[in-house]
Amino acid sequence: MPINCSPSRPLALDDVERWDAETDVLIVGFGIAGACAAIEARNTGARVDVFEVAAAAGGSAALSGGEFYLGGSGGTPAQRAAGFDDATEDFFKYLMMAGGPGADEARVRCYADNAVAHFHWLVEQGIPFKGTYLPGKWLEPLTDDTLIWSGSEAAWPFAQQAKPAPRGHAAQLPGWGAGKLIMEKLIARALDLGATAHFNTRVLALVADRHDAVHGIVARIDGELRTVRARKGVILCAGGFICNDDMVRTYAPQALGCPNPTTGGNDDGSGIRMGISVGAAAIHMDQFFATRPFFPPESLVKGIFINEAGQRFINEDAYHGRVTHYMLRQPNGRAWLLVDEEIFARPVTNPNIDIAATGDTWLEVEHELGLPKGELTHTVESYNRHAAAGADPIWHKAKAFLRPLAKAPFAALSFCAQDYPATFFTLGGLWTSTDGQVLTPAGEAIPGLFAAGRTACGLPRWGEGYSSGMSLGDSSFFGRQAGRRAALTG
Amino acid sequence: MPINCSPSRPLALDDVERWDAETDVLIVGFGIAGACAAIEARNTGARVDVFEVAAAAGGSAALSGGEFYLGGSGGTPAQRAAGFDDATEDFFKYLMMAGGPGADEARVRCYADNAVAHFHWLVEQGIPFKGTYLPGKWLEPLTDDTLIWSGSEAAWPFAQQAKPAPRGHAAQLPGWGAGKLIMEKLIARALDLGATAHFNTRVLALVADRHDAVHGIVARIDGELRTVRARKGVILCAGGFICNDDMVRTYAPQALGCPNPTTGGNDDGSGIRMGISVGAAAIHMDQFFATRPFFPPESLVKGIFINEAGQRFINEDAYHGRVTHYMLRQPNGRAWLLVDEEIFARPVTNPNIDIAATGDTWLEVEHELGLPKGELTHTVESYNRHAAAGADPIWHKAKAFLRPLAKAPFAALSFCAQDYPATFFTLGGLWTSTDGQVLTPAGEAIPGLFAAGRTACGLPRWGEGYSSGMSLGDSSFFGRQAGRRAALTG
Repeated sequence: MPINCSPSRPLALDDVERWDAETDVLIVGFGIAGACAAIEARNTGARVDVFEVAAAAGGSAALSGGEFYLGGSGGTPAQRAAGFDDATEDFFKYLMMAGGPGADEARVRCYADNAVAHFHWLVEQGIPFKGTYLPGKWLEPLTDDTLIWSGSEAAWPFAQQAKPAPRGHAAQLPGWGAGKLIMEKLIARALDLGATAHFNTRVLALVADRHDAVHGIVARIDGELRTVRARKGVILCAGGFICNDDMVRTYAPQALGCPNPTTGGNDDGSGIRMGISVGAAAIHMDQFFATRPFFPPESLVKGIFINEAGQRFINEDAYHGRVTHYMLRQPNGRAWLLVDEEIFARPVTNPNIDIAATGDTWLEVEHELGLPKGELTHTVESYNRHAAAGADPIWHKAKAFLRPLAKAPFAALSFCAQDYPATFFTLGGLWTSTDGQVLTPAGEAIPGLFAAGRTACGLPRWGEGYSSGMSLGDSSFFGRQAGRRAALTG
Repeated sequence: MPINCSPSRPLALDDVERWDAETDVLIVGFGIAGACAAIEARNTGARVDVFEVAAAAGGSAALSGGEFYLGGSGGTPAQRAAGFDDATEDFFKYLMMAGGPGADEARVRCYADNAVAHFHWLVEQGIPFKGTYLPGKWLEPLTDDTLIWSGSEAAWPFAQQAKPAPRGHAAQLPGWGAGKLIMEKLIARALDLGATAHFNTRVLALVADRHDAVHGIVARIDGELRTVRARKGVILCAGGFICNDDMVRTYAPQALGCPNPTTGGNDDGSGIRMGISVGAAAIHMDQFFATRPFFPPESLVKGIFINEAGQRFINEDAYHGRVTHYMLRQPNGRAWLLVDEEIFARPVTNPNIDIAATGDTWLEVEHELGLPKGELTHTVESYNRHAAAGADPIWHKAKAFLRPLAKAPFAALSFCAQDYPATFFTLGGLWTSTDGQVLTPAGEAIPGLFAAGRTACGLPRWGEGYSSGMSLGDSSFFGRQAGRRAALTG
């Protein structure tokens, strides 16, 4: 067995002496994309083998909040029950805005048209949704409710261009972490349907012919190198690359150094590297999700963020990840949340947050922060004057969150980089068609190769536009697409 | 001849029936990187063939200002003559800051240590430098002087961390466009040394073996497809991708739609695609140079930029490309330069600039721009108060550019996206070692493949940090590195 191969270098088909095993659809990674790909591929009758490097299935999705970003078609049952008739065009428009300058219109269109059907499919796989609506601003429901506002839908500039609706759909589980439940159901379904899982199995490289068509993989199985032929296709569902410091440094250096990345631990970029090894385009590799959550409690949304110039820089009712991206680009990475006594609280995710300054007047706070005289005080004076009139002509925060910060004592909570590290995961990945075919920079499909989940660059591809549930929604939906397309190949 | 190949798909070595021609070092693209690579490769005695798609050599460099960003080692002769002893560590530190979060320390170190020697080499190739210093802020010298401030060296935060020195070195030619002269000299030198040039020749694909090692190219020569073997290596010097709308849309969507990109016309991304086709990492593909020049005249640097919140957002003495990147991210892409009668002027590059508002008071200007009441006026009042004291505690503009904007009438020049389109070129490209070897995502060199110029991701890899002369400096220096390394291979 030649071992002159790696995720960055395929094994040449001509060098394969024999295939140690064969299957139809070979899936790399048993997280949410891999599970959904396996289900759909099995539904066509194809033989399916899933190779997972960990000792168990689940991937990063199993550690997540278990939310799917869904809407359109007049609303999911949960949206309709709560009185939101979510038109497909509003959902489409929001997703296009959330995708940023590189939004993939075909991908967004496909998802927006089919997300409600996808909700029903998720239910059919056994995932429970209570169907109830939880108003307010939350990271995830602490209750077992279904529907929450999980993005920037109601915030400027999104709300001005797409009619807002809550679209985060969490599985029914009290408390955080419904991702575990979701993955239990999807894994069980894939296995019940007859997919074969191989755990503790590291896929080392693709097997490709002289024209870069993919024919299988090389894996380490029970300590032995084995070649496995995939008659119909290989689907890369091996996650992103936040666990691979070298890749983060090379591709997304701004996401380096986060002490607690959002991952199940195996987002090592090997799936992306395998795609690149056969000529795939990897796109938006610099983009990442980032957050320093500041709500709940929701009262803190009534505070205002300022930078070291004493300026506000965003409407504070935007999604916490969007606000965090704006924080990251402020001078010296410094930002503070200004609050008065009435709304004072500590973020639930950071109960020991550093209180950088307090004062009986805003002038005292300004002085204690060491900011140029007159700027913070002007900013608060202006904000308070407009807020008293129910307006925010400068940064357009919604009226519900506007009130003057006028009840002393006052405080500045530190959201500076050194005081409150952000958490990250990567959004860049392989360029794929809507049915999961991996593409070259010229947009040509690489025969035999598919990708989904964070190995692909999906709906979420712009840190400023991320909304909770977009990654699970994308990974499950386009995992299905890839599984079906691969199974129907050849 | 099989033609199932493209820049995105190599021709398999096993499919090559015969080599139509052979050389030692095969260079794709006869711009500045290709010319410098050819000179160094010929200096080792290797046979060198250069394939250029255009009818003549020169590439984008021939249309440029002809500036090289050089310094360190106590200064170039021009720097020393003007009294600037530019320490290598200051030059290094500046280049690291200019490279942004993804700066390549090994590349920066190699360049900082050797840039003065590189200046002497450029002189030896026949490029004339008058050696004189032109103070002030310029895009390029309109005179035939050599040395100008061509970046953000003297501006916050660069000046606080690296002792400033002017480092833009322009070839001796009155007026703009010394790039033409530079290329005449380098092309002549390469040809005099015995490099063979092939014009009107499009390289279609690499030829690679089953392990992705590169052995040659397929080109269209005189209307015929020909294979050319490269015994020592192929060097991709085919420019960036600003001319390829599909690639810009895929990789750098924020740079789409520019009516006048900065290019000689053949930056079609084919070099980058060829690298990707054999497993190379393409990095920082989202990054681009952008500018809406606002100086000269230098007096305009004494104005202040505001966004639609009426806020300043940068020190206006920073490099024009850096200021432009900050403009691009302001809400709705809107920004205006506020000036008073004393400094009023129109940028030389935009003599028909839209004057969005005028007034005898700043309140009138604020009103005419339709901005929230009290913000612009606060910003000017605060700026003027501090400027009168020679300080800018908020955005740290250097003292030389501080004076109150107090002499009516006042005006706001529009730098809004729709009024003043920016010009762009791309900065992302193939990941390379300091000697030009093209690397996989794992950092392994691809045998037989090298890259330089904007086909590679070089010193300039962060739009906010670009300085004039960085691209020519990088392309010429690392073109030499690649030429030498390829010639010494095997």
